[in-house]
Amino acid sequence: MPDRIFNFSPGPATLPQEVLVQAAKDIVNFNNKGIGLIELSHRSKEFMAVADEAEKLLRELMAIPDNYKVLFLQGGASTQFAMVPMNLLSKGQKASYLNTGTWAKKAIKEANLIAEAHVAYSSEESSFNHVPKNGEYSVDPAAEYLYFVSNNTIYGTQFAEFPKSEKMLVCDMSSDILSRKFDIKPFGLVFAGAQKNMGPAGVTVVIIRDDLLDRAPATVPTMLRYKTHADKDSMFNTPPCFAIYIVGLVCKWLKANGGVEAMEKRNKEKAAILYGMIDSTDFYRGHAQVDSRSLMNVTFNLPSPELEAEFIAQAGKEGLDGLKGHRSIGGCRASIYNAFPREGVLALVDFMKRFEKANS
Amino acid sequence: MPDRIFNFSPGPATLPQEVLVQAAKDIVNFNNKGIGLIELSHRSKEFMAVADEAEKLLRELMAIPDNYKVLFLQGGASTQFAMVPMNLLSKGQKASYLNTGTWAKKAIKEANLIAEAHVAYSSEESSFNHVPKNGEYSVDPAAEYLYFVSNNTIYGTQFAEFPKSEKMLVCDMSSDILSRKFDIKPFGLVFAGAQKNMGPAGVTVVIIRDDLLDRAPATVPTMLRYKTHADKDSMFNTPPCFAIYIVGLVCKWLKANGGVEAMEKRNKEKAAILYGMIDSTDFYRGHAQVDSRSLMNVTFNLPSPELEAEFIAQAGKEGLDGLKGHRSIGGCRASIYNAFPREGVLALVDFMKRFEKANS
Repeated sequence: MPDRIFNFSPGPATLPQEVLVQAAKDIVNFNNKGIGLIELSHRSKEFMAVADEAEKLLRELMAIPDNYKVLFLQGGASTQFAMVPMNLLSKGQKASYLNTGTWAKKAIKEANLIAEAHVAYSSEESSFNHVPKNGEYSVDPAAEYLYFVSNNTIYGTQFAEFPKSEKMLVCDMSSDILSRKFDIKPFGLVFAGAQKNMGPAGVTVVIIRDDLLDRAPATVPTMLRYKTHADKDSMFNTPPCFAIYIVGLVCKWLKANGGVEAMEKRNKEKAAILYGMIDSTDFYRGHAQVDSRSLMNVTFNLPSPELEAEFIAQAGKEGLDGLKGHRSIGGCRASIYNAFPREGVLALVDFMKRFEKANS
Repeated sequence: MPDRIFNFSPGPATLPQEVLVQAAKDIVNFNNKGIGLIELSHRSKEFMAVADEAEKLLRELMAIPDNYKVLFLQGGASTQFAMVPMNLLSKGQKASYLNTGTWAKKAIKEANLIAEAHVAYSSEESSFNHVPKNGEYSVDPAAEYLYFVSNNTIYGTQFAEFPKSEKMLVCDMSSDILSRKFDIKPFGLVFAGAQKNMGPAGVTVVIIRDDLLDRAPATVPTMLRYKTHADKDSMFNTPPCFAIYIVGLVCKWLKANGGVEAMEKRNKEKAAILYGMIDSTDFYRGHAQVDSRSLMNVTFNLPSPELEAEFIAQAGKEGLDGLKGHRSIGGCRASIYNAFPREGVLALVDFMKRFEKANS
């Protein structure tokens, strides 16, 4: 096994190696203070500076205006599926949802527990192999927001262009946040679990327009109200300090490597190499429709499930790890988030060529 | 500053140094697999083994019977304040609560949003300087459970003996879990944020009797139902992998150092040294009543707020850090959880003697 394998895991996923090396130092002795990072009180000036820096960098990288709050919460994106309608809808109100995969479907289920989710579009009948274009769905006139998932990790689809609507947008950006530039102003709320493009599992970033903070009905528990966390700069209770710290380091790395714009360029190049390989042969077949292809998760099939299993096993032996597709659609999936190196994509393409030659 | 200071912080708090050193290795290259710990898929066999081991050790150390589930959740103890009544009570039902401090009070507030909290006892009028003895309160005959906080971090009080009741007990054990032996059988549910005695911030351990898993009303969101997590061994969604890993390492350390029984003995010795110092003079005055004193958090005052500020500042310069009391009662607080070394207690006592001499 090499010093470092190529990790194609969909999340938790590859992080920049320099981030890991820095974390290894700080975890034993933070800034040579004689105390480990995870031993620091969250109210110490040292940790407050860590959290402030992470927020500042996120704001800078994503060009987040002052009328949005940036929160560091726990519970994963899955908890947001409930928190979004709990905070933004009251009984009797509704919101429109684009059903483009497992995560959208789960969000719809939670919204229906609390208020009403209007399903404005579904690609379920075609195994979620595409996302809709503008005009292919209509938002309910009574909807409080239009909800969508920007990138569907499992199916390897992504909105190349974000939906346009008169309603405010709410987006689960867990698997492509920080991977490309976008204008946040049409959005009321964006959330993302960190463990794909931003850091380790254990923190969820929520970006919320501040006029929405007062919407939650009085019956919503304290910890499930965005306002609770916004009022205390995510320090209402002990936050997930380590995960926030890593998000800060990843943002620093991102900035040093050209910011989101440079990342977007690299991501397009990496994905083009891999899709180019898939399109050059009939041996590999992409799952997603071409114009819905994700730059983050490249899903593909081989001629048979047996060959897929063999492909994944042999790749693993060469240090190309985590290529197994999600159990719901099978096949293979290469997740190539921001921190995944171009060399890993080239190594995979090389392996794909050799495997095809040996097995076709 | 020495290589390692003595960190009296109430949480996040001191962890065993060998745990930090091990984590520093694994974070860059886990088990020499060429992948960092926080990059591992939570469904990889490597991480599954980490989570299994953490659960196994917790079960062993706490002698948890098979009819209890052990869950690793997110959101801190504060989220449990709501999840407990959401899962165990329906509208119109009630539970009795012992109000022995800030955390109990917050739990009572959340319970009242969902059902009815009967306050069976309150020590609020005496600045929460004690916990009740058995017989000093009566549980509501209609209560579904009796809720209490075993150790009150802010006030430095602790139940030396747990309440006895015909009702099942529910306990917030955040600040003294694993610090002493106890019989879990009278308990329906025990929860604890990890960041005091078990690990870093970011994971909450919930131990729940399995017959309680089906109680939650159908309207409770998926992520807030204990059953969701119990059915999937805490892998319904991506768990806080790093924090679970550290809990496992801390449990391993605890076991290697004699287990909970040895810890309890050490904790009693450490606390006795510090309370002995406080009782030997009028310069320092303990906040908690003697029979309610905590073995985890030793709270005390000096003759004036000015002297307290000076005490904290000078101690900090000697590498005795985090001695400031909670803003709600002021004064000083020395948190001496499992991993806090006896040498640190001796160093503090030595400093206290010198400070008294110089300032009385």
